[in-house]
Amino acid sequence: MDTAGKSITCKAAVLWEFNKPLSIETIEVAPPKAGEVRIKVVANSTCHSDLHVMNGMPWDKRMQCPLILGHEGAGIVESVGAGVTDVQPGDHVIPLWNPQCRKCENCKSNRTNVCSGLDDTHYTGLMTDGTSRFTCNGTVLNHFMGCSTFSEYTVICDMAVCKINPEAPLDKVCVIGCGISTGYGAAINSAKVKEGSSCAVFGLGAVGLSAVMGCKAAGAKTIIAIDINPDKAQLAKKIGATKFLNPKDFGDTPIETVILKESGGNGVDYTFECIGNAATVKSAFYSSHKAWGVCEVVGITALTKEVSIIPLALVAGRKWQGSLFGGYRGKDDVPKLVEQYMNKELNIDDFISQNIKLEEVNEAFDLMREGKFARSVVKYD
Amino acid sequence: MDTAGKSITCKAAVLWEFNKPLSIETIEVAPPKAGEVRIKVVANSTCHSDLHVMNGMPWDKRMQCPLILGHEGAGIVESVGAGVTDVQPGDHVIPLWNPQCRKCENCKSNRTNVCSGLDDTHYTGLMTDGTSRFTCNGTVLNHFMGCSTFSEYTVICDMAVCKINPEAPLDKVCVIGCGISTGYGAAINSAKVKEGSSCAVFGLGAVGLSAVMGCKAAGAKTIIAIDINPDKAQLAKKIGATKFLNPKDFGDTPIETVILKESGGNGVDYTFECIGNAATVKSAFYSSHKAWGVCEVVGITALTKEVSIIPLALVAGRKWQGSLFGGYRGKDDVPKLVEQYMNKELNIDDFISQNIKLEEVNEAFDLMREGKFARSVVKYD
Repeated sequence: MDTAGKSITCKAAVLWEFNKPLSIETIEVAPPKAGEVRIKVVANSTCHSDLHVMNGMPWDKRMQCPLILGHEGAGIVESVGAGVTDVQPGDHVIPLWNPQCRKCENCKSNRTNVCSGLDDTHYTGLMTDGTSRFTCNGTVLNHFMGCSTFSEYTVICDMAVCKINPEAPLDKVCVIGCGISTGYGAAINSAKVKEGSSCAVFGLGAVGLSAVMGCKAAGAKTIIAIDINPDKAQLAKKIGATKFLNPKDFGDTPIETVILKESGGNGVDYTFECIGNAATVKSAFYSSHKAWGVCEVVGITALTKEVSIIPLALVAGRKWQGSLFGGYRGKDDVPKLVEQYMNKELNIDDFISQNIKLEEVNEAFDLMREGKFARSVVKYD
Repeated sequence: MDTAGKSITCKAAVLWEFNKPLSIETIEVAPPKAGEVRIKVVANSTCHSDLHVMNGMPWDKRMQCPLILGHEGAGIVESVGAGVTDVQPGDHVIPLWNPQCRKCENCKSNRTNVCSGLDDTHYTGLMTDGTSRFTCNGTVLNHFMGCSTFSEYTVICDMAVCKINPEAPLDKVCVIGCGISTGYGAAINSAKVKEGSSCAVFGLGAVGLSAVMGCKAAGAKTIIAIDINPDKAQLAKKIGATKFLNPKDFGDTPIETVILKESGGNGVDYTFECIGNAATVKSAFYSSHKAWGVCEVVGITALTKEVSIIPLALVAGRKWQGSLFGGYRGKDDVPKLVEQYMNKELNIDDFISQNIKLEEVNEAFDLMREGKFARSVVKYD
């Protein structure tokens, strides 16, 4: 392509300061260096983790403004740097905030899906050589989670780019880049929900709804979906929930008390916290069966926020655990999830509330703040 | 036997009030009713859970004095009530504080070893018909954990009596009744320690030492044993520990920081809290590997004592869990553990620090309070 090797001028949503709206700017995207890939982003959906950072609550203090958010995108490779072998220009790809370097202790261990290959990039906002590919009127902008897909073009490390079926609609499968995988995999891979079991899912954003879908796919008999927004009931039930509970309907009674009563006194087999709220994490813990319950923490709570539980509540056999990216390995598993979508085994369409332009991104985050929409997908021109 | 059907007068150690020493008394033990077994206790070892109750910290508020402690015993069946089929007079048995009724939801589920058949008896201190078999000068004494083996004779529900090899020395295998099983099984059954892995065990009483033994049996490569009593180092190493750490040797540096450093920065694969101390529970949690660590809570912390952790520390894949009685089912598994001892696959002898008379039991608990001895075994005449 004739842009290869040159800087590209394009639009991006920039976060100049925490607690301020995103600002649509014209930026320069430098060419990819060795081991890097430049991507024309076709679609990118809004995720709560972006909002956490906008709200001034990054999960590592080294994440600093100005930066370009976005980590749930899909696009087409524009050019590649030296030594890149996994993809070539024209390939359809999903960027991976959880990369798969196949070289770090974690990747080699086969005991976790969490690659540590880009830890530094994630936290410093710089590529592995310690520099950024983004500038805006001469000001250097930081990368975010190795993706920065709220930009028409972005540069990503090759270990964090995954080639997918070119027939997949990029404005749908972009959600596999985070929300769908995180919730669905939490049920399937991490909690390993068993057929005939009972589940409770707290929070019905894209992650929570995907967890409901995962519980359903695993054959759960009872799936209690919980949200303070009653409008979520219909979609939750369409996707597989057998019951919807709104904690606001029970006055001062804690939701865990309601769930214990619903489940015969001892709690449900699996609970999923898909919000990132400390109080809900505690409710999810105590809603799980006292002798064999698994409480899966999926939501990202604030960096230093603690939750107290009584350790004695663990000794009869409860498990408290968590997962990132649903236990999926990026390069190995994302293409399979795309195929599942193509084969109509995975519902994504219902999770997408609206398509928007990049200029409308702040309104989309406002709706997410209000708990109204699961996902808004930015479609780039 | 000619005592069958009659009340038996014998010696027992009675706890009249919390925070007072045990008092050696002459008591009356009524004959077993239907579904009950009266046992001549031959040996009983001291356990920290007895001490918790002596210290006024029972794990259920319904546990009230006066009561007869003891739940790590072995004996010979003296007589049985109507309908008892699993044992008969003369059988050598181990009482099970974790019974196996084979009828409750838990036993039938096959998802937990924790039987709920005697929950009420455990907490109220009364047999299933709501009465006690113990009196002392006309005062009714409560049972404890369905066992009350600090008495020359006791009455136990048939679901909580397990027949064992009559050739097994009762003054050794009594420790299988709690401490050995709890620690050994926590490593083998619950945490499922893998070959070649790294482990850290906090607290080197009988439970902690058994956890070390379990890690060793499972093929762990590194076993860090931790105790504030340096005298524990030798036995821990004999049993399988590859390293001993005394937290007092590191000044203000938290022990979890020391363990992270020992394990290359990310923590060990498995940690076991075998004390029941809230601060140590937290240390054990943060000492486990951040991406795949399993922190197993084995110690019994106080009833309402809370521990705070950062939920974000779970989402990369740590598991926080616990187990009771090492995941063993009483009737199914205890006879097998006795056989393992007989085949010299299980070390018990080294765990027994001394044999004492019932009259010396308070001194034995004083030594346990000081963290000096793993187990003292009371041998009845």
